Amino acid sequence: MHIVFFIFDRLTALDAIGPYEVLSRLPGARVTFAGLERGEVRTDNGCLGLHVDAYLEQVEQCDVVVIPGGFGTRLLEKRLIVLDWIRRVDQSTRITASVCTGALLLGSAGLLQGRRATTHFAVRHRLSEFGALPVAERVVADGKYRTAAGVSAGIDLALGLAIELAGREVAQSIQLGLEYAPEPPLDAGREDSAPPAIVSAIREHVRRRDAELAQHGVIVP
Amino acid sequence: MHIVFFIFDRLTALDAIGPYEVLSRLPGARVTFAGLERGEVRTDNGCLGLHVDAYLEQVEQCDVVVIPGGFGTRLLEKRLIVLDWIRRVDQSTRITASVCTGALLLGSAGLLQGRRATTHFAVRHRLSEFGALPVAERVVADGKYRTAAGVSAGIDLALGLAIELAGREVAQSIQLGLEYAPEPPLDAGREDSAPPAIVSAIREHVRRRDAELAQHGVIVP
Repeated sequence: MHIVFFIFDRLTALDAIGPYEVLSRLPGARVTFAGLERGEVRTDNGCLGLHVDAYLEQVEQCDVVVIPGGFGTRLLEKRLIVLDWIRRVDQSTRITASVCTGALLLGSAGLLQGRRATTHFAVRHRLSEFGALPVAERVVADGKYRTAAGVSAGIDLALGLAIELAGREVAQSIQLGLEYAPEPPLDAGREDSAPPAIVSAIREHVRRRDAELAQHGVIVP
Repeated sequence: MHIVFFIFDRLTALDAIGPYEVLSRLPGARVTFAGLERGEVRTDNGCLGLHVDAYLEQVEQCDVVVIPGGFGTRLLEKRLIVLDWIRRVDQSTRITASVCTGALLLGSAGLLQGRRATTHFAVRHRLSEFGALPVAERVVADGKYRTAAGVSAGIDLALGLAIELAGREVAQSIQLGLEYAPEPPLDAGREDSAPPAIVSAIREHVRRRDAELAQHGVIVP
């Protein structure tokens, strides 16, 4: 079972690492982190480097592809070399998945046309730009496509996939190995549970950064 | 606010990346990934490289230090250069934290003597080797020390720290940004919720790998 993560500059690390930590534990899993250049990519805040082990073009097929998100996806939405690769590899997959704004890359590649999908709540409306039907759920399945809401939702997506791909017992074993029995000390993780002022502030923060990237290709400090 | 993650070969990526994704969003946060060598360290399964940006000795003080876990901690429990650094940097911290088997490094460094602490359930009994009092909770606070259970518990630890260090509203904003409203599709994340056969299998898996590392310094395939 070959599982491929596309990683890129300004990704959100947890979008990729959450699902990786689950899926890499599937029996027989082989995991590849692929990107435009080999070597280091830096996360959205620049604080962390993740290592790209394979060029995109070295990955012609795989069983599962995961596209994480982060502000960096805005810079890739029109990169044909990336969108072509996503379309090509998607022809071979059993599962094509995204976390957070990774869905906007699946959308840009034309794969969400007419499909139910989700992404980070602050950009969910953008899914309709790509002909997708935005859904306010944590994980959305449509055909072989799986899209997750923001950042941490990728863990739930991956655990659901573990059940599908390897059965309930394997998934239970992975869940226990990770001690994934969350106890958030607050209840502000959803737009309908967080205080409205905080929901607005996150929306505005995302809107501003996204607009800067769309316009200038950089985040204005 | 300077937050330092110690990373090393054969760490479990999510142990570090969960807390990083929360703590890096604190106002004024500066985050450093430090290790024995600059450049790449590989995770426990070898599938992913994370980038070390600073030598340990370049970090003489910080506000928060986080020690993640993974099978690699077994190889470091007697590395004086690491234990000395943990002790030294601990003298400067407001918070010294561990995730999963990172607690065994805090213990080896002598910092958990007489303290309540936790770690991955499968090695929790080992805490008493270091004079700590093993506690079966997800996150344990004792003085300025915070220890988390296995892997995913680091996210809850970090969100608790966000409340302490920056207040409830900032923490709520971080939680919403990450859409951290978990919906695990199974309920097997705790030793008292998972099927007993799976609990035993995980214990045995960890015991065997840990023994191999303690004896041979490698995981026998």
